[in-house]
Amino acid sequence: MRKLTKLLMLPALAFASHTAIADEGMWQPHQLPTIAKELTKAGLKLNPNDLTDLTGFPMGAIVSLGGCTASFVSDQGLVATNHHCVYGSIQYNSTEDNNLLKNGFLAKSLDEEVPATPGSRIYVTEEITEVTKLVKAGLNNNMTGSQRYKAIDENSKKLVAECENDDRYRCSVVNFHGGLEYYLFKQLTIRDVRLVHAPASSIGKYGGDIDNWMWPRHTGDYGFYRAYVGKDGQPADFSKDNVPYKPKHHLKVNKSSVDDGDYIMVLGYPGRTNRYRTAYEVENTFTWTYPQAKAYREEIIDLIHTHSEEGSEARLKYESTLAGLANYAKNYGSMIHSFNTGTFFARKQALESNLSQWVNSNAKRKAQYGEALSGLDKLLKMDDAQQARDLITGYMRYSKMLTTANRLHRLAVEKQKPNLERERGYQERDIARFEQGMKAVDRRYDEKIDTEILVAMLTHYVALPKSDRITAFDKFFGLSKTTAKNFNEKALRKKLAKMYKKTTLNSEEQRLAWMNKSVSDFEKSKDPFIKLAVTSFKERKAIEDKSKELAGNINAYRPKYMAALIAYFNDKNLPVYADANSTLRITYGNVKGYSPQDGLVATPYTTLEGIVAKDTGVAPFDAPKKQLDLIKKKFYGGYEKEAIGSVPVNYLGTLDITGGNSGSPTLNDKAEFVGLVFDGVYESIIGDWDYDTKLNRSIHVDVRYMLWVMEHVDGATNLIEEMDIVE
Amino acid sequence: MRKLTKLLMLPALAFASHTAIADEGMWQPHQLPTIAKELTKAGLKLNPNDLTDLTGFPMGAIVSLGGCTASFVSDQGLVATNHHCVYGSIQYNSTEDNNLLKNGFLAKSLDEEVPATPGSRIYVTEEITEVTKLVKAGLNNNMTGSQRYKAIDENSKKLVAECENDDRYRCSVVNFHGGLEYYLFKQLTIRDVRLVHAPASSIGKYGGDIDNWMWPRHTGDYGFYRAYVGKDGQPADFSKDNVPYKPKHHLKVNKSSVDDGDYIMVLGYPGRTNRYRTAYEVENTFTWTYPQAKAYREEIIDLIHTHSEEGSEARLKYESTLAGLANYAKNYGSMIHSFNTGTFFARKQALESNLSQWVNSNAKRKAQYGEALSGLDKLLKMDDAQQARDLITGYMRYSKMLTTANRLHRLAVEKQKPNLERERGYQERDIARFEQGMKAVDRRYDEKIDTEILVAMLTHYVALPKSDRITAFDKFFGLSKTTAKNFNEKALRKKLAKMYKKTTLNSEEQRLAWMNKSVSDFEKSKDPFIKLAVTSFKERKAIEDKSKELAGNINAYRPKYMAALIAYFNDKNLPVYADANSTLRITYGNVKGYSPQDGLVATPYTTLEGIVAKDTGVAPFDAPKKQLDLIKKKFYGGYEKEAIGSVPVNYLGTLDITGGNSGSPTLNDKAEFVGLVFDGVYESIIGDWDYDTKLNRSIHVDVRYMLWVMEHVDGATNLIEEMDIVE
Repeated sequence: MRKLTKLLMLPALAFASHTAIADEGMWQPHQLPTIAKELTKAGLKLNPNDLTDLTGFPMGAIVSLGGCTASFVSDQGLVATNHHCVYGSIQYNSTEDNNLLKNGFLAKSLDEEVPATPGSRIYVTEEITEVTKLVKAGLNNNMTGSQRYKAIDENSKKLVAECENDDRYRCSVVNFHGGLEYYLFKQLTIRDVRLVHAPASSIGKYGGDIDNWMWPRHTGDYGFYRAYVGKDGQPADFSKDNVPYKPKHHLKVNKSSVDDGDYIMVLGYPGRTNRYRTAYEVENTFTWTYPQAKAYREEIIDLIHTHSEEGSEARLKYESTLAGLANYAKNYGSMIHSFNTGTFFARKQALESNLSQWVNSNAKRKAQYGEALSGLDKLLKMDDAQQARDLITGYMRYSKMLTTANRLHRLAVEKQKPNLERERGYQERDIARFEQGMKAVDRRYDEKIDTEILVAMLTHYVALPKSDRITAFDKFFGLSKTTAKNFNEKALRKKLAKMYKKTTLNSEEQRLAWMNKSVSDFEKSKDPFIKLAVTSFKERKAIEDKSKELAGNINAYRPKYMAALIAYFNDKNLPVYADANSTLRITYGNVKGYSPQDGLVATPYTTLEGIVAKDTGVAPFDAPKKQLDLIKKKFYGGYEKEAIGSVPVNYLGTLDITGGNSGSPTLNDKAEFVGLVFDGVYESIIGDWDYDTKLNRSIHVDVRYMLWVMEHVDGATNLIEEMDIVE
Repeated sequence: MRKLTKLLMLPALAFASHTAIADEGMWQPHQLPTIAKELTKAGLKLNPNDLTDLTGFPMGAIVSLGGCTASFVSDQGLVATNHHCVYGSIQYNSTEDNNLLKNGFLAKSLDEEVPATPGSRIYVTEEITEVTKLVKAGLNNNMTGSQRYKAIDENSKKLVAECENDDRYRCSVVNFHGGLEYYLFKQLTIRDVRLVHAPASSIGKYGGDIDNWMWPRHTGDYGFYRAYVGKDGQPADFSKDNVPYKPKHHLKVNKSSVDDGDYIMVLGYPGRTNRYRTAYEVENTFTWTYPQAKAYREEIIDLIHTHSEEGSEARLKYESTLAGLANYAKNYGSMIHSFNTGTFFARKQALESNLSQWVNSNAKRKAQYGEALSGLDKLLKMDDAQQARDLITGYMRYSKMLTTANRLHRLAVEKQKPNLERERGYQERDIARFEQGMKAVDRRYDEKIDTEILVAMLTHYVALPKSDRITAFDKFFGLSKTTAKNFNEKALRKKLAKMYKKTTLNSEEQRLAWMNKSVSDFEKSKDPFIKLAVTSFKERKAIEDKSKELAGNINAYRPKYMAALIAYFNDKNLPVYADANSTLRITYGNVKGYSPQDGLVATPYTTLEGIVAKDTGVAPFDAPKKQLDLIKKKFYGGYEKEAIGSVPVNYLGTLDITGGNSGSPTLNDKAEFVGLVFDGVYESIIGDWDYDTKLNRSIHVDVRYMLWVMEHVDGATNLIEEMDIVE
């Protein structure tokens, strides 16, 4: 067990200057010395080795909010992150009389700070330890996939349980390179988090969903939390007596910001990427999964629109569902377009062909890696055999009644086991959130729309070949002899109408009551949705088990493939970063524009004037009047950037980021805070699969805009005074 | 009567260098000597005086197609213009077996050339004569508006009739500066026009309506006609024996094209601008007319969508109507946006205030111009009093049955008068086109949609105040006591259903028969739409007469206002160009990009590669495979532009153009052909009212792209050989 905060590993991944990957890469802290020359060449003024020390500067100032990144920007535990990362907490503290989302929020002193939304946490990563051997202990080549899956799961759970003996910490075992390596992350968990400041949504969310993923951008996507601890300096639940946490390190704020071409870096917790998938996986995803999923999403969006009038109660209930559906329909659309018009797939195929050639050109390599790719692809193809069915049943889950019944029944099933053996999501630690979910059903449920979703998805379902069908489903709905040709939609609607009439799962009281019932209670129930859940469980569980068996087998092959790929790159003196997996990473690059299309150039900065130009007075383009007036008067108040003749609002960078990086501080060459990363441009959505130097651009809030709004629009001078502002 | 081809006028409009208006202005040829210095400074290598000679070079090479501009590009009468200007002729020659719109057309020799669509003409302007005194002869201050209107109309008709004694010519009297001046235009009219070449629509219309008014652009918007005349060299109807017309001048084609910043100019026939409207007119148009018209257009679009399924026969019938409605809804939308976010109105108000100050600061000026603006605005306000009613009845005309009945009845009324006294549109020269229109009704009519349009517009109509209502309408539809509050839509629908059931105007045979009936036949008819036309005629005619009376009065005041404005500008040494009025003009400027939005820059050129990037394989982004393959191979075939590393497709210019300029040749500093202007960018749609140096950009097909496609995609080498290609 080696602690990566102190020791380095993977010496084989020596770096050689290779400009093509200059800005690509989400590097683990321990990898930085291997790319030290590059970092210095790119402009970093710190010693790259300093970045490997998790408890030193600047790493000690970087924290996770779980899903978002943040950073300490004062010695009093002040935390800067994105507006969209503190959004829930603003919403939570809003009242009818004081709509903080609309008006923004500013605590002028500590006692005005308010608790963040329940469950808010600040995680400070203190140790990262490689635990590959421990996680793989007991694995052998004769195991079935399920056995392998279970062994890894149990070894991991044991490590986490040991680590969490100290209850100030949350621990997790994370898989790198598809299971080639495992690391244990130990994070100090601050439980008293308070909202300090956020601008009005018409600044923090300016442009809303319309501008999401878009450039030009004018979003003031920032907000502030503060970390509180007990008087003993240790994490504690909320208490009036708690005191601000004093981090060992915090970032200085450089109000000069950065210029076009300047070095910038982002430290944060990127969520998930798929950069090392095989050509087969890529092709299947982009030519089957994404187009099909996009079509289902658009179908459900359409039917929600058709069956709920704008502004109606039903529509309001589905606004958030619609936003989620549309968000990924747009996301998939962008990726499919990039895939079809770009060179990603050709390059992926070329890489695989070069890899094969490299492997086969040497007997030893052939012996070691010869089966890696073909073995992996063989398993992946098995996984895809029933993907049509799985995608349809996946989208069926948008039916709240169906999902509620399945989940409640599963809870009863899992409760029969000891806590640690239960499925994730059904353990004791999950029960509070489960209950919250059951309470929330009403707020997102409309019987008519729920019915339409089932009709739509069952219409696709009956077109599946018999071998893919779920017998219990067919029996329950009377579809055993039904195909697309003889499908009787009217009969199905009649059946569904009866089900919705009879079910009591639309009652919160009933749902909560079912949380405490036994499997045999479920088996006796006459509620039609519960009956469906019960009678189909065996088959659904078999599908799940089969999928775990396959996952276990893939877990035996993917590391081989990754080992081959890493060896291949190493042979070419190229370092390899792991796919993002919500762990701490560093990405570096420059402030830089790009050409989104032939005939257009995106300049690296937007300006205050662009806000006025976009403003329509109607959300999401409804900046506060005070702000608009200041801009019209060209009141730049000390934050003007000479080169652009105004206050910069957002800027573009070449950084390699993804979801989870939200709220990450953008740092200059001396690791001073110069903004916050909050999005990527439309053309780089495919970045989760492929980094394209020409098109991959991160979008950052410029620190000058943050400070200009804080000082001149919101009067948050107390926070400006609290921070160490340098020039 | 002075001939402007030889003599100059308006010496008061002396020009002084004033960079602010460098690229603004649609100059009449005779004005060029007054801006000679500017032209030379901007880069023109010719003597500006040469441009005043309508029959010399280069003016002699510029022709009108009526609605579009074109130019001679060979000594054999070869005419270059836009694809969208020859579109009708391509369509006309298309057959089911040979879809020329899809495949394009190329005559490899003269005998393969085919007749253009019937009625096609090429007009060569040979004389422009000022006729202000003759048109205003007999006018006096005691006339009523109607008398004035009639006097001007009669004087003009007389001049036209005299001029057209020579039947080779078409003549027209055109009003400049709102009636301050009148000019007689004499145009040689070539009647045998043939289609020579057009690329496939997937080149010539690449991007279609989606890219319309948009940058980046990749449209090969070019096509070729040839002018034919009798063996005697005189205009003649189509005959196999006709020979190519030999123009005195034609343009050389410079295959080097132009570079970023280069001088360019466009000679052509811009349609209509409103640059000198009063602040009151501007405000009323942008805050009332355009938003209201946009709303009605969108309402009709929506109802057509709702009541016809995509691909249905009904939808197909309305595709062209939909395109027209959407085109101007988009147009108005852009203008409203520009108006709301830009400085146009503030500048207009400032101008008016400066003008007033200038007028009032001097007793003589006060006496001369003091009443001009206030008098004009007073009349304009009268004009706007019933604009709500007029806009509604205007959009009611989208009902084919209503319009057909009104027009047929009006024809009978007009036919009672001598030919020359009839309303325009009902004279003998108009009958053929009238008949064509009556035949075409079926192709654009669906009873359900026609009904819905009437229901929608009558719903707006009943909300009008009683004073604005048409009594005969109210009586006919039983709406006399109806307001928005008690409107019974169901009853109206019942009435309309009966009308549509009973009318026979949906029969072509019936419509054509009605063309020859008398007013008393109409008065006896029981056809409900004819009954409505007959009973409402008196009131509609009264509205028309009132509008003419007002027009006559405005015609007395607008010239005063324009005289004041011209005197004011002259006093500041600024030249004044007249609003566009479909007469020959010159605009000059440079190749230049712009910033459409904060954070974005439009570069001045697009490239071949952008075609591949946009291509989806689905119209309008479905370039021919041959073209795509050549681009993918980077086959530039001698037309590459070094600075951009590819063949330029379209470029941006600062030229001041509008509809009617379509097809105008873009000329370099030596008046050589370097492309065709075909559109403006979205941000310059408001250009019809206001030229903004920063945002006004014309879009041109680059001659290199034309030649590249002609040579390497379409093999139109015979035409390349026919033209004088220089470098």
